[in-house]
Amino acid sequence: MMFFQIFFALSFLFSFSNASDFCVGDLNAPQGPAGYSCKKADAVSVKDFVFSGLRAAGNTSNLLKVALTPAFSTQFPGVNGLDISLVRVDYAVGGRATMHTHPEAAEILVVIQGTLYAGFISTTNKVYTKTLEEGDVMTFPKGLMHFQINVGKSGALAFAFYSSASPGVYLMDNAWFANDMPTDILQETTFLDPDQIKKLKGLLGGTG
Amino acid sequence: MMFFQIFFALSFLFSFSNASDFCVGDLNAPQGPAGYSCKKADAVSVKDFVFSGLRAAGNTSNLLKVALTPAFSTQFPGVNGLDISLVRVDYAVGGRATMHTHPEAAEILVVIQGTLYAGFISTTNKVYTKTLEEGDVMTFPKGLMHFQINVGKSGALAFAFYSSASPGVYLMDNAWFANDMPTDILQETTFLDPDQIKKLKGLLGGTG
Amino acid sequence: MMFFQIFFALSFLFSFSNASDFCVGDLNAPQGPAGYSCKKADAVSVKDFVFSGLRAAGNTSNLLKVALTPAFSTQFPGVNGLDISLVRVDYAVGGRATMHTHPEAAEILVVIQGTLYAGFISTTNKVYTKTLEEGDVMTFPKGLMHFQINVGKSGALAFAFYSSASPGVYLMDNAWFANDMPTDILQETTFLDPDQIKKLKGLLGGTG
Amino acid sequence: MMFFQIFFALSFLFSFSNASDFCVGDLNAPQGPAGYSCKKADAVSVKDFVFSGLRAAGNTSNLLKVALTPAFSTQFPGVNGLDISLVRVDYAVGGRATMHTHPEAAEILVVIQGTLYAGFISTTNKVYTKTLEEGDVMTFPKGLMHFQINVGKSGALAFAFYSSASPGVYLMDNAWFANDMPTDILQETTFLDPDQIKKLKGLLGGTG
Amino acid sequence: MMFFQIFFALSFLFSFSNASDFCVGDLNAPQGPAGYSCKKADAVSVKDFVFSGLRAAGNTSNLLKVALTPAFSTQFPGVNGLDISLVRVDYAVGGRATMHTHPEAAEILVVIQGTLYAGFISTTNKVYTKTLEEGDVMTFPKGLMHFQINVGKSGALAFAFYSSASPGVYLMDNAWFANDMPTDILQETTFLDPDQIKKLKGLLGGTG
Amino acid sequence: MMFFQIFFALSFLFSFSNASDFCVGDLNAPQGPAGYSCKKADAVSVKDFVFSGLRAAGNTSNLLKVALTPAFSTQFPGVNGLDISLVRVDYAVGGRATMHTHPEAAEILVVIQGTLYAGFISTTNKVYTKTLEEGDVMTFPKGLMHFQINVGKSGALAFAFYSSASPGVYLMDNAWFANDMPTDILQETTFLDPDQIKKLKGLLGGTG
Repeated sequence: MMFFQIFFALSFLFSFSNASDFCVGDLNAPQGPAGYSCKKADAVSVKDFVFSGLRAAGNTSNLLKVALTPAFSTQFPGVNGLDISLVRVDYAVGGRATMHTHPEAAEILVVIQGTLYAGFISTTNKVYTKTLEEGDVMTFPKGLMHFQINVGKSGALAFAFYSSASPGVYLMDNAWFANDMPTDILQETTFLDPDQIKKLKGLLGGTG
Repeated sequence: MMFFQIFFALSFLFSFSNASDFCVGDLNAPQGPAGYSCKKADAVSVKDFVFSGLRAAGNTSNLLKVALTPAFSTQFPGVNGLDISLVRVDYAVGGRATMHTHPEAAEILVVIQGTLYAGFISTTNKVYTKTLEEGDVMTFPKGLMHFQINVGKSGALAFAFYSSASPGVYLMDNAWFANDMPTDILQETTFLDPDQIKKLKGLLGGTG
Repeated sequence: MMFFQIFFALSFLFSFSNASDFCVGDLNAPQGPAGYSCKKADAVSVKDFVFSGLRAAGNTSNLLKVALTPAFSTQFPGVNGLDISLVRVDYAVGGRATMHTHPEAAEILVVIQGTLYAGFISTTNKVYTKTLEEGDVMTFPKGLMHFQINVGKSGALAFAFYSSASPGVYLMDNAWFANDMPTDILQETTFLDPDQIKKLKGLLGGTG
Repeated sequence: MMFFQIFFALSFLFSFSNASDFCVGDLNAPQGPAGYSCKKADAVSVKDFVFSGLRAAGNTSNLLKVALTPAFSTQFPGVNGLDISLVRVDYAVGGRATMHTHPEAAEILVVIQGTLYAGFISTTNKVYTKTLEEGDVMTFPKGLMHFQINVGKSGALAFAFYSSASPGVYLMDNAWFANDMPTDILQETTFLDPDQIKKLKGLLGGTG
Repeated sequence: MMFFQIFFALSFLFSFSNASDFCVGDLNAPQGPAGYSCKKADAVSVKDFVFSGLRAAGNTSNLLKVALTPAFSTQFPGVNGLDISLVRVDYAVGGRATMHTHPEAAEILVVIQGTLYAGFISTTNKVYTKTLEEGDVMTFPKGLMHFQINVGKSGALAFAFYSSASPGVYLMDNAWFANDMPTDILQETTFLDPDQIKKLKGLLGGTG
Repeated sequence: MMFFQIFFALSFLFSFSNASDFCVGDLNAPQGPAGYSCKKADAVSVKDFVFSGLRAAGNTSNLLKVALTPAFSTQFPGVNGLDISLVRVDYAVGGRATMHTHPEAAEILVVIQGTLYAGFISTTNKVYTKTLEEGDVMTFPKGLMHFQINVGKSGALAFAFYSSASPGVYLMDNAWFANDMPTDILQETTFLDPDQIKKLKGLLGGTG
């Protein structure tokens, strides 16, 4: 008899408590400043909390010889609202992640394989660089430009973690040269020479 | 004449300002990481900010001899977005709130009637316990397991307040034994003996 | 050849990253505790981030001889989710912003033109006042009552900035006298005399 | 043998984890925007988490016939950093908490004994009032003016909880009249008549 | 008699409430993740909340023909802990603020005088630009690169406000070229040609 | 000539901006609710942002056959204030991380090597489990109990990342059995039998 009583009393309480456990993102519902709307509780399963899209290496046959495979809230809705996400980074020999930031997110990079030369630049223009071996971790403070170069003799692998479910990847080169920003405006606001700008626009698909 | 002018000028301003005052939860609209969507301003009345569901003692005729009556954002939508909520706790003689946490929420317990023996355990495994008399308050830091036992000779009453509108109530026993988690997995991850696990699964309605 | 490869690889990444850049408010979609829902990314244009509604002086022909023109998230949806907004304040000679607060928002006032006598009161009842000249800035901590009076010989202009996209403007006089709060309740809760209350209710459009 | 090994391995880990459990306030150490500095871990005991200063009714022999006994982080250092605190409120017959706010904190009031008439005013000047019986709870959104009046025939008791460890109590009357703010400045910024101002300054200990 | 009683009862309460009002920065005390330690309450005066350092135009006799005069928590300790600060920006004819970000802070720019061509770039490489006239405001979301150019025929003046008391000013050119970052590393991580890099290092004082 | 002018003008600005870039923890200075005090800027070097303590596998010769090597702010002061940290987890064959939570932190686990059976339990007592292969990631929402078991035929390696610089590791078994909590209190608050409690106290070093 007792058994049913407690079961009733406690489950009554529990039926109200799921709101704060998690908020798996519903990519088709309205999105707000804090992230995606939550999937209905009964539609959530363990699949929402596991992501297998980082198992395989990305394709590094590109100019940067690098592949970034994201598991942000858009790919991995289980992290929606949790202030955490990651990217798998594969570097071919000589590959590199060029100067970039993550607006609002701090990062920790873990080197799984290979040797990376990595660094960041502070707002006082100080450069912090280090060669990282397997098992080393490096943190890049929020919003600061950082980079990694595979300086080893074989491919490298790292995972980068973020303090946001949607950190963005903001590559300086692409931001400047992979769009229609007029060359003269870029010249005025970057000090770069027009020839340099046009060359990089050509390389990265920009116009203007 | 002046009267109308100021009334116009100021009410013009005010008509834009209601967004940040409050966000009474609309339980039928999308929910996001920050809580429920807001009820339309003109549908809000004082009833949304007052809750009478805690007037009466809960039913303590159960195994724990305790009744928890929540006023979280689901029951009391006026606290949605306000990072505050509460629970009424009635303890029969010998009643107790077993080990539990509130993910993400800190708590303050106020003893209104009776004598409670209460405590929590830190992540360094240190135990903090105390006998609380009427009028005493005790705080339980975020996410730490805590409990209360009515050690007095009559019923006890307390109110527990939380730093979240949806703190959840996470009873360790129910989490382990009131579901279909296989016994061998529980054994491996809790050190408990299979007999103990099966006994408690029986008591709390679990299977496996 | 390379060109296409990098373009593909990088744009693949970027197509997932827009969520955290900004969340321009969609005033017709559900609103949550963190602000308005976001406009769809492809509906966003530079117009959402620029507001020209503060170009012209407001109409100061009112009792306060002041005009407050807000650019909160309701008027200026580009600041939705960004924890920042502003108001243009025009003061005729002798104009003033009477005692008010902004629930949850801190403020910085910048005097563009004229001379203002400004101040705030702390929760320990201490008064902080100063005469501000052109170019001076003053900060008003969160939730504290503050005021400004144009004590110069000509009109004055200031911009007030807030640490919230929807700070509200909470004028004490209007809160007390521009509604139907019964006079006896106001008397009990403010110490003001009934005659004073009735006079100000008349002035500000209140009843009761 | 095994016993010692696990004990060593796990306690090694635990010795680093106390930082985020709690931060009991050290009232003599530097204070920052997030609260007091933390007491050293080995100086913390259960006494820091329990407060008995609310056991007894406060003295209501004053003009308001009310007594507010706070358990903020200054009185109750165990809540430092936990975004939660409380006040005990005793109301004699006819006693009341006059118009006040808590900058940055939302509140929940629980009526333990008696009948209170309570209310708050929104930034759109709308009044929300209700008569509260024993066991009723009412929430007052962040930064909004609210009040309670004991409208019953005997003393009343309530506990008020806050979403901050240091919410402040900001009584409008005291902010205006219990200091040296010049009468003419108050007149300009509140619309009140000089006679009214001087009368209340006299009552509440103000000058000027 | 009553007078003294209420004065005592209420001031008892108030003496504990100053912690959350404000936390004026003590630049000589320890600094934490949330900002500077607070000045002792009795050392705080109105001077801490007013800053006159923005009255005068900055010196625009430099390469950028621009002067940025900050009022961050280091210059203006009254904003410490308040998540708000500002910069005065003076632009000579043709002056400009080159590409920069503010890590963690959103910005609103208000044009007080002149005509500016301003813009920002999203993490999807989309460019948002607009010509701003006097009185126009533009917001730059957190962490995104933005710029302004004085495209008018006379000097220009703007104030830029931030959602942080210490937003930083992170000029891309200076971060890349005003330090000792080796040219070959920059070449690898920016795609820029070595000649271009060396030219700008020469211009901005960098080496390597 | 120009060169010196811009260098002066811009470096003047930059000398104020370092506060928000990062706050490397000074383990000997006061600690507050937001973390450790910051090391002086000129004492910070790249070594603060790189941690090599996770290069080597931990010692798994213990009861759990697991080794957790933390890189929290106490071991890795560069993450202080950044809301991010990690742990290296080595699992011998049959090794497991028993039921635990991280108060206030969400987690992402990345399987680098081996096969893990992992899961968590919600506050509604629902169990979410999955077998994870190399490259799989799983997220554990804030404050929820979770576990991993090495179900493969060789050792396994994973990295666990947290949304806090000081997440704590809160092992349920150790919290219950590795201290002096009296057996009868544990019995009352966990439903466990006294024999079971005493056995586990023996195993984990507890008394009482």
